[in-house]
Order: sequence, then structure tokens, then C-alpha cells
Amino acid sequence: MKELEERIRREGAVEDGDVLKVDSFLNHQMDVGLFAAMGREWVRLFSGEEINKILTIEASGIGIACIAAQEFGVPVVFAKKSRTKNIAGDVYHVEAPSFTHGGVSDVIVSKRFLLPTDRLLLIDDFLANGAALEGLIELAKQAGATVVGAGIAVEKAFQPGGKRIRAKGIRVESLAKIKAMGKGQIEFC
Amino acid sequence: MKELEERIRREGAVEDGDVLKVDSFLNHQMDVGLFAAMGREWVRLFSGEEINKILTIEASGIGIACIAAQEFGVPVVFAKKSRTKNIAGDVYHVEAPSFTHGGVSDVIVSKRFLLPTDRLLLIDDFLANGAALEGLIELAKQAGATVVGAGIAVEKAFQPGGKRIRAKGIRVESLAKIKAMGKGQIEFC
Repeated sequence: MKELEERIRREGAVEDGDVLKVDSFLNHQMDVGLFAAMGREWVRLFSGEEINKILTIEASGIGIACIAAQEFGVPVVFAKKSRTKNIAGDVYHVEAPSFTHGGVSDVIVSKRFLLPTDRLLLIDDFLANGAALEGLIELAKQAGATVVGAGIAVEKAFQPGGKRIRAKGIRVESLAKIKAMGKGQIEFC
Repeated sequence: MKELEERIRREGAVEDGDVLKVDSFLNHQMDVGLFAAMGREWVRLFSGEEINKILTIEASGIGIACIAAQEFGVPVVFAKKSRTKNIAGDVYHVEAPSFTHGGVSDVIVSKRFLLPTDRLLLIDDFLANGAALEGLIELAKQAGATVVGAGIAVEKAFQPGGKRIRAKGIRVESLAKIKAMGKGQIEFC
């Protein structure tokens, strides 16, 4: 998606450790006009597919998911990262490694909000190692829900997550795919 | 706001310890159509006020803030709850008690996204003890930004946060104000 790629070129900063900082418009300050354009692009890409709910994960997926949900006309459910071990029995949960904070988080969703009849679009801001997206896929599986596909804002295509998840037969639509990046330069696929 | 009060009556559940569970439409599953109506109501309430940015806090404020931001035509910044002590020098930060997880969280915002020229609307899903909202007010103060007011979805008016924050001269517009609640009943102001 041209508009997102141009924004990344203009405002993105590549930092040490394969970090792409896009916090001026994507995941700290958020440009909701851009999010609406992204939502319309996913509507176009997934046209013909029946989707009744968007599933995302806190925190930075939530804004993109909510604006996209308006374009699809469906509700959003966000999976919560729980730092308590005190999990009630009425949730689906997976363990996911936390790259930001270290260690492992329990990622949970109430059983009331993921149903076997659900046809889900998964939304997240980044796809790199794929841990977050695989967590959402596992939660959907526990509920018996159908994953129609995943809408990702920025995929680091040089990391293994995208390949591994597509190999499972999951359709992944990333609006900006980065082939390579280094100090001061970003190359898109 | 009638629509929100009716939704709380219909789907809200009062649990032990003054907990109001509204997770079917507000802060776990999210009804973005309702959020848009809430956003339009805040636009009406704050009409005539100059607002150039919405400030909220992760995680459950983000969805409401993003949809409201579309109605206002402004960007959103969300304050992050950091569980690392490893905070870089380029952020404003406050300590806020965490009722969900216990202990204290550092709540941070990048200095790049809160400016002295900003005229902020603060948005959050709940106002009870006021700790989260006071944290946002303090972050705005550190930046020298102006707080035009706060838009809250649900205020527990029987808890002290709302009174304390209004006493500081901050305008708080809560779309549903709960006077009292108990098993199976909710009374609005």
C-alpha cells in the first residue's frame, strides 16, 4: 500500500536490533485517517470473504483494529496480555514470549467472545517472528472459530513469521512488506 | 447518554468489589458503532473548544479514543504502561498504582508527541478513583500542554475520582454516571 510505504519512508527510523520505529503515526501517536485507508484496503483485499469479527491483541493492535472494524462493520475483540497467574476458567489462553518485557505473558480471551461460528480477521501492527499472530491463531483454534486471514500493517519479510504462518495455510495481507533495512534505508518487497 | 446507559443496563454485570463488567461492548469485545455515537456526543459537548489531539492510556482507552478521534479529526497519543525500569530520557513519566496487577506502573509518553501548543482531550473508558486520569493530567502538565477536558465513558460517581478532578478545574464529561450499584441493579445519576 503506497500511502503506508511512503509514510514509513518519511517518518520511520531504523534502530539497532532490527527495530523499525514508526511511533509518530502507527503505535504511539496514531494517525486515524491513515488507519481508515488501511481498513479500506483490507476490505478490498478480503472482499468476497465472510468476516464477522476482528481479533487483535493489546495494546498497539487495538487502534488499527477498531478503525478497520468500522470499515468492515463488525465488532472487535482484543486478547489481553495478563501478568497475573490468576486466570479464571472461562477464558482461552496461550503463553506467548514477550520481546518487550522479557519472559512469558499469558494471552487470554473470554470464551464468551470467541465462538465456533466466528469467521475472524486477525489484525496487528507488526509481523516479525510471528509470536503474537500465532497466539491469536491458537486462541481461535481453541474456540473452534475460523481464521479467514490476517491483516498486518508492517511485515518484516526478512524475519521468519510471515513465511511460517502462510505455510499453515493462513492468508496474510501485509500492507507494507520490508525486504531489508539498515541505518537510514528501508527496502520494500 | 441514553444509548450507553441502556446498553449498560442490558449487558452490564455488577460483581463483588464494586466491579462493573461491561466487557461485551466496551473493554474486551468492542462495539465500534457505539464508540462512534460516543465520539459524536463528545464533539457536541466540546463544540466551540479547540482540540488538536486526544490523549489516552493503554489498553482499554485506545479503541474509544481512536474512534472518537475520527469524529474530531485529530490524532491520538496513548500513554504506555511500562513494566521496565529501563526508561529512556526522552519521555514524560508518572507513577500510577495498578489496581489490576498490583504495585506501581510507570506510565510514559514520548516527549515528541506532547507539545506545549497541544490542546488535549483526555479519553478513558472508566473513571473511579481517578488514578489513570490524574496520570494523564500530570503528563500533560509536564509537557506544558493544555487539558481542554476529559471524555469518560462510564463514571462511578460514588467513588471520589470525578469530584477530585473537577475540583482541579478540569471539565469532565462522562457519558454514563453511576450513582449506586449492587447485585442486579444499577442506578444512574
